[in-house]
Amino acid sequence: MSEFDLIERIRRRSRADDSVVIGIGDDAAVVQPEAGFELVVTTDSLVVDRHFTDHWAPADIGHVAAQANLSDLAAMGARPHWALLSLTLPEDDPAWLDGFLDGFLAAAEEHGVCLVGGNLARGPLNVGVELIGQVKAGDAVTRTGGQPGDRLVVTGTIGDAAAALALGNAAPAELAAGLHRPRARVQAGRVLAGHARAMIDLSDGLLADLGHLLAGGLGAEVRLDRLPASKALVTAIGDRAQRWRLQCAGGSDYELLAILPSEADEDLEALAAAAGVAITQIGCINDHGRIDCRAAGDEVPDDLGYGWDHFPHE
Amino acid sequence: MSEFDLIERIRRRSRADDSVVIGIGDDAAVVQPEAGFELVVTTDSLVVDRHFTDHWAPADIGHVAAQANLSDLAAMGARPHWALLSLTLPEDDPAWLDGFLDGFLAAAEEHGVCLVGGNLARGPLNVGVELIGQVKAGDAVTRTGGQPGDRLVVTGTIGDAAAALALGNAAPAELAAGLHRPRARVQAGRVLAGHARAMIDLSDGLLADLGHLLAGGLGAEVRLDRLPASKALVTAIGDRAQRWRLQCAGGSDYELLAILPSEADEDLEALAAAAGVAITQIGCINDHGRIDCRAAGDEVPDDLGYGWDHFPHE
Repeated sequence: MSEFDLIERIRRRSRADDSVVIGIGDDAAVVQPEAGFELVVTTDSLVVDRHFTDHWAPADIGHVAAQANLSDLAAMGARPHWALLSLTLPEDDPAWLDGFLDGFLAAAEEHGVCLVGGNLARGPLNVGVELIGQVKAGDAVTRTGGQPGDRLVVTGTIGDAAAALALGNAAPAELAAGLHRPRARVQAGRVLAGHARAMIDLSDGLLADLGHLLAGGLGAEVRLDRLPASKALVTAIGDRAQRWRLQCAGGSDYELLAILPSEADEDLEALAAAAGVAITQIGCINDHGRIDCRAAGDEVPDDLGYGWDHFPHE
Repeated sequence: MSEFDLIERIRRRSRADDSVVIGIGDDAAVVQPEAGFELVVTTDSLVVDRHFTDHWAPADIGHVAAQANLSDLAAMGARPHWALLSLTLPEDDPAWLDGFLDGFLAAAEEHGVCLVGGNLARGPLNVGVELIGQVKAGDAVTRTGGQPGDRLVVTGTIGDAAAALALGNAAPAELAAGLHRPRARVQAGRVLAGHARAMIDLSDGLLADLGHLLAGGLGAEVRLDRLPASKALVTAIGDRAQRWRLQCAGGSDYELLAILPSEADEDLEALAAAAGVAITQIGCINDHGRIDCRAAGDEVPDDLGYGWDHFPHE
């Protein structure tokens, strides 16, 4: 396979809609944005031995590469639309590429995303995705804007991916799915965007990502006993303190953490119905300038951890 | 330095204009496109030992990473506007990052490009850039559209980068600049876009890239004796046949190759003046379905090569 054979293999499987003026195969892609919308752009890369291992199925790598970027747009309340794919591959392996595309393109199609271009190079495996979406001008939700008294809510359940990582090969399939098959909350992001003062996606771990929502002296009280956990997590990790550690410090949940005003009349159940996923209040915002974790009737472990930093202090 | 320290280091040095609604530091960037324009999007990655070596100055890597992407937008006739940066770094080396940013941001600023986001990961060095530009709706120039009888023109001079690679440490500084300090022809691309039937940038080598302009049975006659060469190239490579080999098969010129209608009254000198760079006719388009290289009064070498393929046939 030559570089151009590989590109043709990708082009044949990609879809285009009316917005795609020029797709894969030219010097650059040309797309038509909608009037009255702003563009929301993000990029996320997956690196072997950091975000996945050699044992991962190519389709799972493709799936996670798509979801990580979809999740960033979800956190802004944006609708994803166009993607570029930057693949650095150690060899021309059509079977690997086909498997990767199975996972990547299925996720793209589910969200109406057109793959319009990219880049192929040879080198140590590196998967880069760039995703462009749109949001009505002025409607993007940032990480700042929370106020004391606001409610802190999270979508879905958290901790499965961290538990799967901790358990390794011993992880039951339902937990492993949290690691290999996360689902970005794109619909929930668009629903929450109409209500949230601030929002972020959970990729580095609950406490680390919550920290990003607390600029300017804000604080938060987190109720550990209200952190939503899957049945698989509760079954696999019976010890509550250990479960909380995984839920607080583990990353790769790809759920949304949002701050909602308390005085508004948002009914979380109605929001959840529109979002297509559970929405749980896990705490509230205050002005204490720190994160306090509490649990009714239980001792709080003092080693809840701080999430994932690609370049930790040494 | 933590990941967030490194991101802050990048953020402090990036510029934003009125189009940047939300820049570096949130889940995604938000930018405001202009009404009546289409988006032109590209991504190009640089990998160590493929596109540069460990000996390269970080500023040169940053410069080339920017130019490779600027050149893709130039080939569409687009005006570049926003960039994302995906860096996979083996370690947190602030001096390397500062040097890289020196080269990358100087190129970005020269072309009015705002760095609005990106991604940092740890792993084998991999530099990914995504560039988004704009073009008036319908004005993008593709690789297809050439017709028999059209003129084939190229900007600037070609072959310096290939000669610098071939000569290695023996390359004089003027040639090495072709490799480490190429200049994307953004202004020329916008000028030529108003006249060209088809256009591509020269990254893989003249003959390989010309091949991409000849879809659908077109052919071209290339006049080797008219290929524009720098004085440094003529001085360093005295043998004409060897010089032609480098000009035909060597990549990384980042000049533009365009097809202009012959019957129109384009004065190449006037175009060159507007473009700010020489524009030279190097051949013409025919319907022979192949590339013929000719030279007045000289024998044509039969090993002109076919340029660069990241995944060559084995």
